[in-house]
Amino acid sequence: MPYFDAASAAPLHPVARQALQAALDEGWADPARLYREGRRARLLLDAARETAAEAVGCRPDELVFTPSGTHAVHSGIAGALAGRRRVGSRLVVSAVEHSSVLHAGETHEAAGGSVAQVPVGRSGAVDAAVFAAALTPDTALACLQSANHEVGTEQPVAEVAAACREAGVPLLVDAAQSLGWGRVAEGWSLLAGSAHKWGGPAGVGLLAVRKGVRFAAQGPADERESGRAPGFENIPAIVAAAASLRAVRDEAAAESVRLRALVDRIRTRVPELVPDVEVVGDPVRRLPHLVTFSCLYVDGETVLAELDRAGFSVSSGSSCTSSTLTPSHVLRAMGVLSEGNVRVSLPTGTTEDEVDAFLRALPGVVAAVREHLGAPAPEPRPAVQSDTLVIDALGRRCPIPVIELAKVIGTVPVGGRVTVLSDDEAARLDIPAWCEMRGQEYVGEEKSEKGGTAYVVRRLV
Amino acid sequence: MPYFDAASAAPLHPVARQALQAALDEGWADPARLYREGRRARLLLDAARETAAEAVGCRPDELVFTPSGTHAVHSGIAGALAGRRRVGSRLVVSAVEHSSVLHAGETHEAAGGSVAQVPVGRSGAVDAAVFAAALTPDTALACLQSANHEVGTEQPVAEVAAACREAGVPLLVDAAQSLGWGRVAEGWSLLAGSAHKWGGPAGVGLLAVRKGVRFAAQGPADERESGRAPGFENIPAIVAAAASLRAVRDEAAAESVRLRALVDRIRTRVPELVPDVEVVGDPVRRLPHLVTFSCLYVDGETVLAELDRAGFSVSSGSSCTSSTLTPSHVLRAMGVLSEGNVRVSLPTGTTEDEVDAFLRALPGVVAAVREHLGAPAPEPRPAVQSDTLVIDALGRRCPIPVIELAKVIGTVPVGGRVTVLSDDEAARLDIPAWCEMRGQEYVGEEKSEKGGTAYVVRRLV
Repeated sequence: MPYFDAASAAPLHPVARQALQAALDEGWADPARLYREGRRARLLLDAARETAAEAVGCRPDELVFTPSGTHAVHSGIAGALAGRRRVGSRLVVSAVEHSSVLHAGETHEAAGGSVAQVPVGRSGAVDAAVFAAALTPDTALACLQSANHEVGTEQPVAEVAAACREAGVPLLVDAAQSLGWGRVAEGWSLLAGSAHKWGGPAGVGLLAVRKGVRFAAQGPADERESGRAPGFENIPAIVAAAASLRAVRDEAAAESVRLRALVDRIRTRVPELVPDVEVVGDPVRRLPHLVTFSCLYVDGETVLAELDRAGFSVSSGSSCTSSTLTPSHVLRAMGVLSEGNVRVSLPTGTTEDEVDAFLRALPGVVAAVREHLGAPAPEPRPAVQSDTLVIDALGRRCPIPVIELAKVIGTVPVGGRVTVLSDDEAARLDIPAWCEMRGQEYVGEEKSEKGGTAYVVRRLV
Repeated sequence: MPYFDAASAAPLHPVARQALQAALDEGWADPARLYREGRRARLLLDAARETAAEAVGCRPDELVFTPSGTHAVHSGIAGALAGRRRVGSRLVVSAVEHSSVLHAGETHEAAGGSVAQVPVGRSGAVDAAVFAAALTPDTALACLQSANHEVGTEQPVAEVAAACREAGVPLLVDAAQSLGWGRVAEGWSLLAGSAHKWGGPAGVGLLAVRKGVRFAAQGPADERESGRAPGFENIPAIVAAAASLRAVRDEAAAESVRLRALVDRIRTRVPELVPDVEVVGDPVRRLPHLVTFSCLYVDGETVLAELDRAGFSVSSGSSCTSSTLTPSHVLRAMGVLSEGNVRVSLPTGTTEDEVDAFLRALPGVVAAVREHLGAPAPEPRPAVQSDTLVIDALGRRCPIPVIELAKVIGTVPVGGRVTVLSDDEAARLDIPAWCEMRGQEYVGEEKSEKGGTAYVVRRLV
């Protein structure tokens, strides 16, 4: 039963499990205490910090452990913004950051700060020059992920870091998705990571803040972890996290080549096996283990449920928004299709057989979902000789509006228009994306008198 | 090698260890996911929540898991204050709350709110009527611990909860020290707990918020744990925490009787075995497993180090301030001696033999420390026929000022005065406490021209 959602959480690495077991016996006491149990706990914590700092590429006293990657991002952003309050209150982020970064930005805006989002291209990467142009003199902090969590595209961290240095702006790198694969390029000021993404246990994140970076921890004071992460240290989990980071790094060189080949196979074969599929994300500058594709005329949750029934655990869109049924902000920012989105992220150890089994199962699953939803057949339907047509898809959730559009586009003459009325927010992304995939013209949207929005499409082919 | 610091952290309960092992295999995936690994994780999380809610005495949907007890307190206080912003910005707390509560109060004050501290008596308990009087119409929230973490005294939670209900003020109870022993009395609005205090793993706290209590979670948004605890859930640790809470509760009735008897033995025997000792905290309304005493003419850190060398792990003062060498705010609020403070908190399973070994070792340890520090001999020294005397203890840390005072008090005639010059903040507490223990009159303090403070004592006996 292959599990292909390593980007959400990886199963515990065997080394992490061994380290956790040992540290449960030796590391349960308060490391602030001077008696022997406390001293033992302190030694374990110090050793774990050294191991993690070595993997991150910083000094041990620059690194603290947090209760999660989300906490590391939240407190890193809040502390860096507060430390540079006198410079200004502008926060610059890429449009495809993890929701934890965007949510921290919303909090900053609610408190009177401003947030500028740097757009990305269709591959999901920012342009370093565009990012640099956003670094105004009142910019307190910039944030850029090392690689995108939904599509795997690597960001130009080194170039953006150089631009930030030039502008005198600290750069926080959310390295949650890439830290298990290697160090982040030099030049960052703050760095956040999350252990359960690299086979460590849940409950451990890390935040590194370079010496010299102005930083003022926010929230109630606490003595632990240099005042940057309140609460009793979770030493057994920290020990396991550090041990597994070292272990996966040792395996990373060989494993990344192997998984990269498996992902390339998925990238190549899926469009051959399944019609009307768009594989998204940069094909070369990407994480080794992750690929995302979107299927026209398919509802993402349904295809995931069918794949689960067939024995494959994959995810769709952003894990943090999947339950809210809003379109992924990442795919939207990239301007690519979001409907029927499937993210495959292979844990270390994934076999060729497992990937091939997935490729055998996928076409049938997608076809069945499309048939159930009444997706259009390959042949064009007979024209009805009207050059304008209105589809009322109000109250119907995506992908229905796109399916209905695809069904009727062949019934208006070339140059004719189809207007789709929809009140599903996802249509705003998916109808233009469908037009681009199909070579039709997306004219634009209008306010609809019947409610929702009228999306106008002109038939070109 | 007995470990007597259960109030800091308890070793992992065997049930917690078993549950953790099992949940590492079944509970590592993202519980927000719909595939089988995610569903399994969700089932474990839901079951743990039901178990914990049953132990706390609330509905499962009123309880969230946090990364620590400190996080539960911080976010509980911040959310409750924000939820009642329209009512006012006054926070009422007892003077002997855990530092996490007091630090959250400082943050509230820094943001423009006000904090009122309700004093405690010499036993460490608040008077419910005094607490009630502090509940002004602009009070947004009141906080009271269930039992004190340093001296074990139980607080009159039921009476204070009734007063809060009368005044329409929500009450947050920090139940960190007592939750393993039983439910908190009815009437609370919010409740916080910490798993590593009851034999669960580190990395798990809990926050319960009664339905109907106005609550607005602060900080960046996050979907997990009802929006009240950001970050990926630490399910294996949560499962272990809930299982161990149930296990220790099953054992609590028998174990509390047994440990209460052992603590009573310490309370009775220590003053018989060691001269010049004050056992503090309520002798009856107290936690079953915890006792604190202070030894005159002894430095707390030194006696702890000597006890560690003799094989006993105990703590001194507040665990959260022990490394800062400031006197415990709890002992100060109680008006009792803080010097030479030793807290003994017995983990479940502590044997009679271990306690007896401690009682055998303690007198020699204290005597050796006193001898090393030059503490006064029992006999009064010959008088020198001066009725006023000034001791310059500037630059010397407690307990030296008290030791010097004790040495010379017999050299002035009855009715004569001794003035102690000291710049150690602890002297402000310890000199009056010594006078009370010795039947001498503490006249008061004056500004000293040589720097520090002049503490004036009149010899009565």
